[in-house]
Amino acid sequence: MHDISKRILQGEVRGAARAITCIENDYPERTQILQEIFPHTGKAKLIGITGTPGAGKSSLVDVLIGFLRAQGMTVGVAAVDPTSPFTGGALLGDRVRMQKHALDSGVFIRSMGTRGSLGGLSRKTKDAVRVMDAYGCDVVLIETVGVGQSELDVMNIADTTIVVLTPGGGDSVQAFKAGIMEIADLFVINKADLPGVSKLETEVEQMLDLVKHDAAWRPPIVKTISTQGSGFEQLWEQVLKHHTYLRASSQWDIRRAQHLQEEVLDIVGYQVQRLIHDQLRSGEYGEQLMSVANREKDPYSVAEEIVRRWFGSRPNSR
Amino acid sequence: MHDISKRILQGEVRGAARAITCIENDYPERTQILQEIFPHTGKAKLIGITGTPGAGKSSLVDVLIGFLRAQGMTVGVAAVDPTSPFTGGALLGDRVRMQKHALDSGVFIRSMGTRGSLGGLSRKTKDAVRVMDAYGCDVVLIETVGVGQSELDVMNIADTTIVVLTPGGGDSVQAFKAGIMEIADLFVINKADLPGVSKLETEVEQMLDLVKHDAAWRPPIVKTISTQGSGFEQLWEQVLKHHTYLRASSQWDIRRAQHLQEEVLDIVGYQVQRLIHDQLRSGEYGEQLMSVANREKDPYSVAEEIVRRWFGSRPNSR
Repeated sequence: MHDISKRILQGEVRGAARAITCIENDYPERTQILQEIFPHTGKAKLIGITGTPGAGKSSLVDVLIGFLRAQGMTVGVAAVDPTSPFTGGALLGDRVRMQKHALDSGVFIRSMGTRGSLGGLSRKTKDAVRVMDAYGCDVVLIETVGVGQSELDVMNIADTTIVVLTPGGGDSVQAFKAGIMEIADLFVINKADLPGVSKLETEVEQMLDLVKHDAAWRPPIVKTISTQGSGFEQLWEQVLKHHTYLRASSQWDIRRAQHLQEEVLDIVGYQVQRLIHDQLRSGEYGEQLMSVANREKDPYSVAEEIVRRWFGSRPNSR
Repeated sequence: MHDISKRILQGEVRGAARAITCIENDYPERTQILQEIFPHTGKAKLIGITGTPGAGKSSLVDVLIGFLRAQGMTVGVAAVDPTSPFTGGALLGDRVRMQKHALDSGVFIRSMGTRGSLGGLSRKTKDAVRVMDAYGCDVVLIETVGVGQSELDVMNIADTTIVVLTPGGGDSVQAFKAGIMEIADLFVINKADLPGVSKLETEVEQMLDLVKHDAAWRPPIVKTISTQGSGFEQLWEQVLKHHTYLRASSQWDIRRAQHLQEEVLDIVGYQVQRLIHDQLRSGEYGEQLMSVANREKDPYSVAEEIVRRWFGSRPNSR
């Protein structure tokens, strides 16, 4: 067993941190580590928290961490942070946040950004969540900053997905637009001391009448005020209710099995993409790429040539 | 030559619409069409318009269409719309918008959503833009609703990228967070009749002092009020200035050549991913997938097995 795997399973925080660094940077040992810790995962409650920018997700997560810690639970946070193509790192706000909890060994926060050009943010975040699970976090919060497709994709691994809205500002309309309403197991109206709460509540209820959801679970709406710490008991109560519902309806096992199978496709896709990238960049296809840059050939024909050369006739023969 | 290609090149709107439907649904003829129209592309000005949700991009685009039409230009719009996994279609707002311009044959609007589970939204949008270019649009506006990574990725093909901000509401901070500041060639402060304009302007200028950009082109800031139609002359003037700058500095050819090469990688990646998906779903790997669902095997080992079986030892030997 890899030394880092051992350290994760012994609950050593620096082992877990090191593993996530390996995942973020695609170090070769990441696969061995993930394979070794896998049998020790599946225990943590995985909770997704999403919403449009400005909905106050970060402060909500902050208060929720405090609430869960007060109940004696250990908490992991994987914050998905689509970073700038230039700066390529986590942002100031997150660094400040990490410092706030830096002295609490029961809290493990990691901001996942898109370092490098290869994407794979959603893939890497899922792997990081697995590390936190194996490390022994009772709850892992998966927080997404954006509302894009790759950010939503991360939510596939959550047992319960919370969509955060705020009154006013056309927030709910934007949430409908981005397609995040339908993935909600639970709604939070945050900043519930602002005007427009009941209007937003009505809008969400109307939307729920239109949108498909499990017949036996209509997503409840909880109101929170992060600045005052109010509403968090009700929020957690609803999360637990949702877990009870999932377990009772056997949805729990079905969801987790589906997620694992999707992950295989996901990992295969990611690895093959990396192989492609390495090979194309290696220079072997330099001539073809140049002919495209000169507009002598079109990108579609060159791409077809390359795919055919790799797979031969095999994939098309199926 | 495919009948659809002919119709696009003859400027027949229904041919162009049909081609984009083929692209969206991955119909087999899409590749032939894209290959055939490619030599007739590269003439349109490609302008990306992005910003955080709620910045008023849709109304800005609406007014910009009117402005460009008044100058006698034909306009294509590809609106990137990460749709709901359930409803899977374009949204009400866009349908309304499309109707508004439905009678003007000089405007071609298409909302690109993620139909199906395979993603590829950015890939498909780029192909749709190429169809609009071949069809004869003088300007193609590429509008992204979200702020996620896959939405930003679309901007790679734009000659000029406009980032839309609004005063108040911490909008600029969210824009920094999402990493969209650095891709801007041009900033628009929209809703410039709201309070907080000069504060936002100062923030952007300060950010520009910190952020890397071409030494010879510091992104200008233009103020618009969509509801009053004001500022659009200045906006278009700056777009033209940017084009002149690109052409004069030979950046134009470099950018376009780079984009074409990146597109090859992109198309290869997308096609290989589809092959993988088809094969995995075909049932050949059913047993392995089941063993993961049962947690008998871990997803990393099974993914490795599958990749190895496909590529043999070839990719690893490089």
